[in-house]
Amino acid sequence: MHLQATSVHHVWDRSIAPVLTLAPGDTITVQTLESSGGQLTRDSTAVDVSALDFGRVNPVTGPIRVEGAQPGDALVIDILETSVADWGWTACIPGFGLLADDFPDAHLRIVSIDGDRAELLPGLAVPVLPMVGTIGVAVPEPGEHSLVPPRRWGGNMDIRQVGPGARLRLPVGVEGALLSLGDVHAAMGDGEVCGTGVETSATVALRVDLERGAAPRTPVLETAPATRRTGAALATTGIGPDLMAAAKEATRALVDEVARRTGVDPVDAYLLVSIAGDLAISEVVDVPNWVVSAHLDRALLAGL
Amino acid sequence: MHLQATSVHHVWDRSIAPVLTLAPGDTITVQTLESSGGQLTRDSTAVDVSALDFGRVNPVTGPIRVEGAQPGDALVIDILETSVADWGWTACIPGFGLLADDFPDAHLRIVSIDGDRAELLPGLAVPVLPMVGTIGVAVPEPGEHSLVPPRRWGGNMDIRQVGPGARLRLPVGVEGALLSLGDVHAAMGDGEVCGTGVETSATVALRVDLERGAAPRTPVLETAPATRRTGAALATTGIGPDLMAAAKEATRALVDEVARRTGVDPVDAYLLVSIAGDLAISEVVDVPNWVVSAHLDRALLAGL
Repeated sequence: MHLQATSVHHVWDRSIAPVLTLAPGDTITVQTLESSGGQLTRDSTAVDVSALDFGRVNPVTGPIRVEGAQPGDALVIDILETSVADWGWTACIPGFGLLADDFPDAHLRIVSIDGDRAELLPGLAVPVLPMVGTIGVAVPEPGEHSLVPPRRWGGNMDIRQVGPGARLRLPVGVEGALLSLGDVHAAMGDGEVCGTGVETSATVALRVDLERGAAPRTPVLETAPATRRTGAALATTGIGPDLMAAAKEATRALVDEVARRTGVDPVDAYLLVSIAGDLAISEVVDVPNWVVSAHLDRALLAGL
Repeated sequence: MHLQATSVHHVWDRSIAPVLTLAPGDTITVQTLESSGGQLTRDSTAVDVSALDFGRVNPVTGPIRVEGAQPGDALVIDILETSVADWGWTACIPGFGLLADDFPDAHLRIVSIDGDRAELLPGLAVPVLPMVGTIGVAVPEPGEHSLVPPRRWGGNMDIRQVGPGARLRLPVGVEGALLSLGDVHAAMGDGEVCGTGVETSATVALRVDLERGAAPRTPVLETAPATRRTGAALATTGIGPDLMAAAKEATRALVDEVARRTGVDPVDAYLLVSIAGDLAISEVVDVPNWVVSAHLDRALLAGL
């Protein structure tokens, strides 16, 4: 079975009619749009980022009804394969992102995707590790709900391990589950600090199954080994009593280090950290100060 | 040069006299005590955890004066080697740890360390990846400062990548830097959620150098590849507008999953997540809800 990217929606709403019905155990391929929903193209510039219509961003393909799914069940989704386009984009969108105050201006990089490498800048390519940014089931509360924030029901979780080889368990909130997905990234770091990964259109193959009465409280994932980073990293720290402030501090320090060591513009370093750097909570127990660390494979910087 | 664990102190205080002076470029081996400072032994039980004198915990060995170090310099520390004892401990300490409300009772596990494996429970050993939990320089503000919280000057950062092969840059705050270290863990996960890793005494070999006027704003690290995890993981999520609440939710969910899948007592699952599980900030941009995910190598559970 195949679902084209013509069947998209822009809000979570349990009243949106399903475009397809699957039986538990079925596999399907789903086409997804990049997260601007066609507003950005290969020829776009920063001006187009400033002009984005946010009512049209983050489209998801679906909803897919799963036969027999009932509230309280777990929807078990195996991501079998994810093929991405030959280009993507990553951007600094004014007012959006962890360091929105530091980087107020729109900035756009079109990223060439060639096999297992995504080129952000000349001499700087990051490994392609495709992932499904948004995957979720209908919110049970009636009415329209924004696609931007993730929820217990999944959605725009932007967990970089939700890619090929992963198994995701979501709680079912409405009869038929009503699964939708989109917002594939060819690469993204833990945190997605500038607000985008390498945004790209894609085709996702998945298998859907049900476990009766086994709804997890929040989404649970089994990850694939390939999604874990192995290289030696450059890491910076944010230290203090507030995890958000520490995340900002660690990110800002990593952006500064990358810019200083390589000479790239800080805003490009910010994009790089967003698509390939990882935010870890190093400790959250040594009262009253926590440590967030931001890690970036040092090998990425070798060509700059 | 060698520094024994008889030269320890229990607060940061710039007036503590250095026990040794190094020149930039020197190497030294430093003995460190486990973080109870000898209050817990191989024969201890949970009762001894409840009786811990917190005035004696987290001892650090030092201070080491570095010749010529001035405020504004960067102290560059290469961790060359870390050898740990043949046992350690990990514990749930009442009132301490990310899930202190869920686990109010004292609990202690003595961990046998045998080469590259640390056995928490029969059939459950985690890889030994030694790290230096506390490493820092004197706080420039006069007077006594607790050793518990990390600060800009380092200290109890509990960054699991601060182990063999890592290079750490700390800002120098006082003349001579006054470096001290301790609190070595044979293993620890990002977050150190129960408040302890595998606490153990150790000998740490390090090289110390200076970079003039290059003090980083917060500690900066170059990590070794071996410290990054590569296995397929079980991962849980916490989703919401507060990173701390999300960290708790993800941790609680991982503890529950491990206990449910393996039958181990939840408090032991909590200890396991603390010594081998990693908290990642998956996204911190999809307003207003952030995602913290907690990851644990699935292979660790195979023997249970």
